[in-house]
Amino acid sequence: MIGGSMSIALKEKSFARRIIGVDFNADHCATALGLGLVDEISSLEDGIAQSDLVIVSIPVDATLTIMPSVLDKVKEQVVMDVGSAKLKICQAVSGHKNRKNFVASHPMWGTEHSGPKAAISGAFKNKAAVICDKQSSSDAAVAMVESVYQTLGMHLVYMNAADHDVHTAYISHVSHITSFALANTVLEKEKEDRTIFELASGGFESTVRLAKSNPSMWLPIFIQNKENVLDVLNEHITQLKKFKACLEKENFDYLAELMENANTIRRILK
Amino acid sequence: MIGGSMSIALKEKSFARRIIGVDFNADHCATALGLGLVDEISSLEDGIAQSDLVIVSIPVDATLTIMPSVLDKVKEQVVMDVGSAKLKICQAVSGHKNRKNFVASHPMWGTEHSGPKAAISGAFKNKAAVICDKQSSSDAAVAMVESVYQTLGMHLVYMNAADHDVHTAYISHVSHITSFALANTVLEKEKEDRTIFELASGGFESTVRLAKSNPSMWLPIFIQNKENVLDVLNEHITQLKKFKACLEKENFDYLAELMENANTIRRILK
Repeated sequence: MIGGSMSIALKEKSFARRIIGVDFNADHCATALGLGLVDEISSLEDGIAQSDLVIVSIPVDATLTIMPSVLDKVKEQVVMDVGSAKLKICQAVSGHKNRKNFVASHPMWGTEHSGPKAAISGAFKNKAAVICDKQSSSDAAVAMVESVYQTLGMHLVYMNAADHDVHTAYISHVSHITSFALANTVLEKEKEDRTIFELASGGFESTVRLAKSNPSMWLPIFIQNKENVLDVLNEHITQLKKFKACLEKENFDYLAELMENANTIRRILK
Repeated sequence: MIGGSMSIALKEKSFARRIIGVDFNADHCATALGLGLVDEISSLEDGIAQSDLVIVSIPVDATLTIMPSVLDKVKEQVVMDVGSAKLKICQAVSGHKNRKNFVASHPMWGTEHSGPKAAISGAFKNKAAVICDKQSSSDAAVAMVESVYQTLGMHLVYMNAADHDVHTAYISHVSHITSFALANTVLEKEKEDRTIFELASGGFESTVRLAKSNPSMWLPIFIQNKENVLDVLNEHITQLKKFKACLEKENFDYLAELMENANTIRRILK
């Protein structure tokens, strides 16, 4: 979805002339070719050899495994990743002789879908793209990746990989856990599927939407960002217990206060 | 928002010829008149006397207080409410001499906004409207309310008030608590407003959107549906603790299983 959506935009804006797809999943290769997301399919080695820019858009555990061998193969090529956890990948390539060719980045856009069929036109627009530890990349590599994200219509944010992982735990990772857990709550206790289906309102859909997300993408993110996710998850459980205690003790003044405090999120999210 | 959005639709579809607004908030009266949501403003007594249908669209605590006196004033008029908790209101009017004129109902649509300015055209469409305890209302009253919701483009669901309150605890009320608590989690620990603002992605926005909801509307709902909300909230905290324990103990197989189970929500929510 991320790689394919980038392909669409980079072709539309004439940033990329030719896009070579590499995927160990043959079905995804065929679909990507059929949808015109890529111009051809190649092996990793040949693909890298013919490219100016290599975009590694795969689950973050696979990125950790493959990135050193990708960097082994580059000469002038710029390599970027797009994963939602950044510290481990930056550590994994920190001593690599071609570290300067790599730019650690994270476009803050996604949906609950994945795979080539989920690629869409107009993705990424007006969202943030984070570039991490830019001092470890060459100026030329950073400039190329900046120009990719600007072409996608994103605004750039710079931070170190450790800070990125703290912030994304708040802004993204725990939202996903909440949504997975809410789906399980409803599936566990609400045995009447038909009733959920009939009654489900926009509020339910928006809080549970992320529960459809792909575990093979999200599990490695939670694993790599375990400490930060646990910190935020603990805080979230503490906050939920405050709501629970207020209801149990009928402390409705404090319950109103908790809700009014939550309302102040308006100052950040319009 | 609910009353105003109904006005727009019922006028557009020529269901209503004349709409009389009654509100103790003078600003809301002026706004509703200015926006054309109502044709005139009146006192409760005069408004009821001149109407065929009375739609009580106010917070559920106020509905409990005012409904007996509304029913005192009716002759042939049909009275409906639209609140998100149904058992208490049904109990409150159960012995009233004009109980047959009242239809307990709940259109399953809303946004995080409230007040007349939040009224929109096209609301309600393709969502469910629940009619509760229909055997306690006259056939004529039920028929009128059914025709209101059909005019709004909603499909009708019938259940008793107690069941309604169980289902809405799952489908709506706990989503709101989760969202309020998630906003507080982020506001508590993420001290960098600017970073949240810059990075916030669609996933965060959709899980936190409901945290902007009006406490004076939601507190009375949580109070009236306390027992059911507590049941679901306890289950939700239990589910979150499973995610937490998996991360802490690095039981990643079970973590994947939890996520795969959550994915099955797709069978209910497309």
